[in-house]
Amino acid sequence: MYIPAHFAAGDAVVDELLAKHGAADLITLTEDGLIATLLPFLYDPSVGEHGALYGHVARNNDQWRKPALGESLAIVRGPDAYISPSWYAAKAEHGRVVPTWNYVTAHVYGQLIVHDDPAWVENIVRRLTSKHEAARLASPGQSMPWSVDDAPRAFIEGQLRAIVGLELQITRIQAKAKLSQNRPETDIAGIVAGLSARGDERNAEAVEHANAERVNGAVKG
Amino acid sequence: MYIPAHFAAGDAVVDELLAKHGAADLITLTEDGLIATLLPFLYDPSVGEHGALYGHVARNNDQWRKPALGESLAIVRGPDAYISPSWYAAKAEHGRVVPTWNYVTAHVYGQLIVHDDPAWVENIVRRLTSKHEAARLASPGQSMPWSVDDAPRAFIEGQLRAIVGLELQITRIQAKAKLSQNRPETDIAGIVAGLSARGDERNAEAVEHANAERVNGAVKG
Repeated sequence: MYIPAHFAAGDAVVDELLAKHGAADLITLTEDGLIATLLPFLYDPSVGEHGALYGHVARNNDQWRKPALGESLAIVRGPDAYISPSWYAAKAEHGRVVPTWNYVTAHVYGQLIVHDDPAWVENIVRRLTSKHEAARLASPGQSMPWSVDDAPRAFIEGQLRAIVGLELQITRIQAKAKLSQNRPETDIAGIVAGLSARGDERNAEAVEHANAERVNGAVKG
Repeated sequence: MYIPAHFAAGDAVVDELLAKHGAADLITLTEDGLIATLLPFLYDPSVGEHGALYGHVARNNDQWRKPALGESLAIVRGPDAYISPSWYAAKAEHGRVVPTWNYVTAHVYGQLIVHDDPAWVENIVRRLTSKHEAARLASPGQSMPWSVDDAPRAFIEGQLRAIVGLELQITRIQAKAKLSQNRPETDIAGIVAGLSARGDERNAEAVEHANAERVNGAVKG
């Protein structure tokens, strides 16, 4: 991925993106070409030199049976949005502006290991469930946390036999947070207002956060 | 991609996803392994047997210089969301339920062609701008459509020299709309309510729409 210096994502941004993300596209190169599946993953930064992603696929999904050649790639996406030049103060000032696309993403490269092992998979399922139920219960209007133990044991064992575990042993991570850091400070308020007006608070907040130090510094100065 | 029959996306769903989508991950296999970039694309279904995607990358982005080996892959993502078993009527009825992840995605495979040609690129930039400005202006609180002609011509020519055009001549599309169609009709209302309570109207509407015929049919019956 092409990462100009002003769009390089710091370790804190990468850690938060990987820890909180929902589902990521896992892409493997096989003898039959590129194969991809969207999968929820757990990120464990304490494993090996660069951490690991853990997940699972349906047993009927051929991707785990076809050996992954070389490094595999998990693409983790944060917010992304079209940025209109009409939002820039610079549009009225001199007009030398063009549209762009903001986005946050991490490209997680690693060696893919298959765990066809119900005990391994059950551990991952329990941890994924805890992660996503906790995120859900933090929203308003949600009740009744669900846990694996709420279902009949025989049913769970059948479900576990129908899935296969995957581990991506991370070799390197490329991460980009392209959030208008290359725009003059005077353009930031217009971008945030334009995104908010579209109801896109997630992208508005990302731009605000990524430029807070610079913009607040400018205001103070 | 593994696509059980009940999750196969029909042509209308694929056409709408590709026509309206924002940015997609373009993954190419190169001598240096897998490389990916998130790019806005135009979809033209009238080209060749399966249509084409058109876009552009920064000239400084190495991906276009490294020959793509075999088919490249553009991953177009629709809505996706964690689905809690607590939302299912079946949870209270018999408890044989587990969490899942809903998502809509198209895997667009094709041959990648590079167009290092300012006139070709300008045409794509104009069409991309029209597409995304039109989508923006359909939102409330947006004004002032922007067009390439609003900027000084010398500035635009400089910008065009800094980007390179890409065409993905589509060879095949795999598409999946995993929107709870495998759940009993009695579970659908709970899923829609649970997603809405989280403020996720996009996923709620996707589930409602994908199951409308079945659920409404059941109500009538």
